[in-house]
Amino acid sequence: MHVYFAPQTILYDGTQLSSLWAYRSFGLLGDSIVAFRGPCRVQFEHMVDLEDVRAQSPIYGDDMLHFIVEHFDHDLERAVLRQRLLAAIIREILEQKGYGLQRSGDDLYYQDRKLSISIATTTPVSTMIHTALNITAKNTPVPAAGLVELGWSVAQIPKLAGEIGRAYADEMQSVQRSRCKVRGVG
Amino acid sequence: MHVYFAPQTILYDGTQLSSLWAYRSFGLLGDSIVAFRGPCRVQFEHMVDLEDVRAQSPIYGDDMLHFIVEHFDHDLERAVLRQRLLAAIIREILEQKGYGLQRSGDDLYYQDRKLSISIATTTPVSTMIHTALNITAKNTPVPAAGLVELGWSVAQIPKLAGEIGRAYADEMQSVQRSRCKVRGVG
Amino acid sequence: MHVYFAPQTILYDGTQLSSLWAYRSFGLLGDSIVAFRGPCRVQFEHMVDLEDVRAQSPIYGDDMLHFIVEHFDHDLERAVLRQRLLAAIIREILEQKGYGLQRSGDDLYYQDRKLSISIATTTPVSTMIHTALNITAKNTPVPAAGLVELGWSVAQIPKLAGEIGRAYADEMQSVQRSRCKVRGVG
Amino acid sequence: MHVYFAPQTILYDGTQLSSLWAYRSFGLLGDSIVAFRGPCRVQFEHMVDLEDVRAQSPIYGDDMLHFIVEHFDHDLERAVLRQRLLAAIIREILEQKGYGLQRSGDDLYYQDRKLSISIATTTPVSTMIHTALNITAKNTPVPAAGLVELGWSVAQIPKLAGEIGRAYADEMQSVQRSRCKVRGVG
Amino acid sequence: MHVYFAPQTILYDGTQLSSLWAYRSFGLLGDSIVAFRGPCRVQFEHMVDLEDVRAQSPIYGDDMLHFIVEHFDHDLERAVLRQRLLAAIIREILEQKGYGLQRSGDDLYYQDRKLSISIATTTPVSTMIHTALNITAKNTPVPAAGLVELGWSVAQIPKLAGEIGRAYADEMQSVQRSRCKVRGVG
Amino acid sequence: MHVYFAPQTILYDGTQLSSLWAYRSFGLLGDSIVAFRGPCRVQFEHMVDLEDVRAQSPIYGDDMLHFIVEHFDHDLERAVLRQRLLAAIIREILEQKGYGLQRSGDDLYYQDRKLSISIATTTPVSTMIHTALNITAKNTPVPAAGLVELGWSVAQIPKLAGEIGRAYADEMQSVQRSRCKVRGVG
Repeated sequence: MHVYFAPQTILYDGTQLSSLWAYRSFGLLGDSIVAFRGPCRVQFEHMVDLEDVRAQSPIYGDDMLHFIVEHFDHDLERAVLRQRLLAAIIREILEQKGYGLQRSGDDLYYQDRKLSISIATTTPVSTMIHTALNITAKNTPVPAAGLVELGWSVAQIPKLAGEIGRAYADEMQSVQRSRCKVRGVG
Repeated sequence: MHVYFAPQTILYDGTQLSSLWAYRSFGLLGDSIVAFRGPCRVQFEHMVDLEDVRAQSPIYGDDMLHFIVEHFDHDLERAVLRQRLLAAIIREILEQKGYGLQRSGDDLYYQDRKLSISIATTTPVSTMIHTALNITAKNTPVPAAGLVELGWSVAQIPKLAGEIGRAYADEMQSVQRSRCKVRGVG
Repeated sequence: MHVYFAPQTILYDGTQLSSLWAYRSFGLLGDSIVAFRGPCRVQFEHMVDLEDVRAQSPIYGDDMLHFIVEHFDHDLERAVLRQRLLAAIIREILEQKGYGLQRSGDDLYYQDRKLSISIATTTPVSTMIHTALNITAKNTPVPAAGLVELGWSVAQIPKLAGEIGRAYADEMQSVQRSRCKVRGVG
Repeated sequence: MHVYFAPQTILYDGTQLSSLWAYRSFGLLGDSIVAFRGPCRVQFEHMVDLEDVRAQSPIYGDDMLHFIVEHFDHDLERAVLRQRLLAAIIREILEQKGYGLQRSGDDLYYQDRKLSISIATTTPVSTMIHTALNITAKNTPVPAAGLVELGWSVAQIPKLAGEIGRAYADEMQSVQRSRCKVRGVG
Repeated sequence: MHVYFAPQTILYDGTQLSSLWAYRSFGLLGDSIVAFRGPCRVQFEHMVDLEDVRAQSPIYGDDMLHFIVEHFDHDLERAVLRQRLLAAIIREILEQKGYGLQRSGDDLYYQDRKLSISIATTTPVSTMIHTALNITAKNTPVPAAGLVELGWSVAQIPKLAGEIGRAYADEMQSVQRSRCKVRGVG
Repeated sequence: MHVYFAPQTILYDGTQLSSLWAYRSFGLLGDSIVAFRGPCRVQFEHMVDLEDVRAQSPIYGDDMLHFIVEHFDHDLERAVLRQRLLAAIIREILEQKGYGLQRSGDDLYYQDRKLSISIATTTPVSTMIHTALNITAKNTPVPAAGLVELGWSVAQIPKLAGEIGRAYADEMQSVQRSRCKVRGVG
């Protein structure tokens, strides 16, 4: 699958979570994980998580590292499982700096402050994940932690994005290998 | 899903990895994660991982904590994704004792020594996972680490098994919740 | 799955047949069967059954008992099978009053007069069923029968709705049990 | 789908519940419902319902009307839904003689005595249902009712079998029609 | 499946590629292949192939033989496989006149000039294919060949359409037969 | 996907049609098309096509070019569609020598004599295809044609095998590209 860091700043407003965004934007055909940096402002009409809509929980942040993942199958449960695995991978990578994080489902926390937002959903032709990490914790709707506080400088963000993207792609390739080397049982 | 620790010692010989084992053995109907303690001796004819068969890598251990997971759907890729998530969950729980572990796909390592074995496969009516952790590293085919070395006494094994089982069941329930609260996108 | 009777009168205009309606309206997360009482007026642009659209058959009724069912899988054939089973369950319950009914697919008749309307369809994240029973046969587009005529007073409607909802939910649970207790064959 | 009554007496011993039985036995290619008359003796090793195996409940009867259904898809939940619908159809047809029956999932009862046995399972290439009705209640493991008691003479069995088979095939065709006439919703 | 040639001229503008078009237009319920003759003008907002949108490749032609195929399953990969098979079938039929054609995926060429356009996609309830053959090569965006040049007179178009439609329907029926006559292997 | 020509002569006796044969034999992990040359002798107990078993049609040939294809998904209809596409691809390649062939489903004929045998089936973890072409028409159960007669020398067989294998792999890759570049429609 494609691993790509878009160098430009992009405002995440929810419209990026639509099928073939990576192909339309960057010509990436097939499964992909695309990262970029930018603020986050999602209007209620673009929210996909109806729990947030019901709770009228706004989604925003001034400076985040975003990941948009697309897989060309049509199984929402697989998508949620991959979303959780992506959260676990991010935790494993971030902890290399020595800060302990908590994962609860698709959410990551540092000292009970929220580091990430995430959603997985389906399109007519694929499934998609949006996961974003606060770079700074400024201007967030809930008590938050940011990557800077966890020891990552702003200059390191592209490198971190690449590391996470490659680890996710490696995990997916390894899932395929595991799927293809077993016989069935009775 | 059912979470169960079988109190008796059971030799894992590969025959436990067959459909409805939890129902036939313990009356547990439906999705389940069952843990037990026991040695591990898998003959080549019962091996499911053909990479091991090809490499003629024997699978054994004197004292392991085993998990047998069964889900009543029929998607091997989901099963492998769940297997990876189970490995991530075990890592998260074991690290509470302060020892750093490495996860590589479905394998867990401590200081480059192997802590776990794992396989995911399909049955005619379900998918299944076997994951086992060395309790001691004695008599294993490769350099190994064990739970005792990581600070878990033998007396704590049932409690650890329960904690892992419940965390996995909670994760699966949370996956279902996430699957049921999103709308599709374009 | 959730079984719920909404106490307020709701006009069924077709917009209720959209994903997560039970969650958005009543906070019910996951599979559900929701009943309510109200008139029925479906404009052609909200009709889902293109046979009715082609035939320009209007869908309306002054007073009906409605059921909205949602299952979070993605198999329209399963949805139609469940719709038929719901019709069979309703027939079994209504006949307890001693009136013989005919079921023809998803339709119920009393003495060749139509008692019910029903449709099953798919959303991006789930499948849904709408089934409604005439409470009175007044102001319907075809010769119709109503629950009052079959011995159910208006005051009994909530109790009847609950009985049907629970029977359907029990049937679905029993389907899951049956799915999880068999081995495959050759 | 094919509807066929095999005129010869056949002992049902469980081996009929295997893929392509109708094709191998009668040249019927594709989905089918085949009926025949015969005794029923299923050894534990051929039992598919592990609930019966666990309870050591024997399955036998001296004279039964059997139905073997095969659908060439691979969805066990659909198969169980169809099995329930077949039970509902049989009930609807048998009640034409004026005897009230109870359906509980896949089981039919007359005055708390069991009229039927049934199982649905999967093969590597299809799903299958076996449903059988006691013709007489002699020599059954539990209190039972039989078709003769419900007003069907032995001479009428082939006609009854045909009526049930055709009603099931009509229902399946109607399910296909319903699946193909709806648009999706949001 | 239904095979139908619509006698009227129809402008293909992309709106025909939507679910139940054959049912809404001609009352054909279920799987179908419908052919018609007409010009082709697809605005970018109706284009389904995002490769064309990205390349800003217009899609038009003055006189084409169109095929609209709909199958009521929900597997886009199957749809693309069927699209390729349709291209292979068209090639086999056209070559009866003695002109050699090249097939490259879903495209047909005569002497490096493009004879066809094609796309396969998914709807909420089905999958669909549009394949069209130039009747004349006039006014096409790329160097093109047409059926007239390959020895088919305009008067023969309905007959050719019927031949292709029937061959495709026969192939699909034969696929079903092949799917229903094999046992599984280990 | 892997494309491989095994240089050794292998007797095809039906046991090659089992899951992970390419991995167990040649270490090829994942989707593959493997070709080899050898005689063909399939005992009735290893036959997968029950039409042949019913007709007691023996399957044998003295010298054939075999292809074993494995795809790690679980959809028998896709497998049959791919089998047909492989037949169409072989026809397209063989006709480059100027001999006209007929394709009828999965069978290829030259002047009404059979050139090929083929079957597609399912394993617990994958789907598989066996297609074989007579190299010579000697000792075949029905009137047959062989590759030698169609202008291919025995020395050219490995090159031909490679050409067919690569064309099939290219087609599958192209199918994936087509699957990943379209948006859904209404």
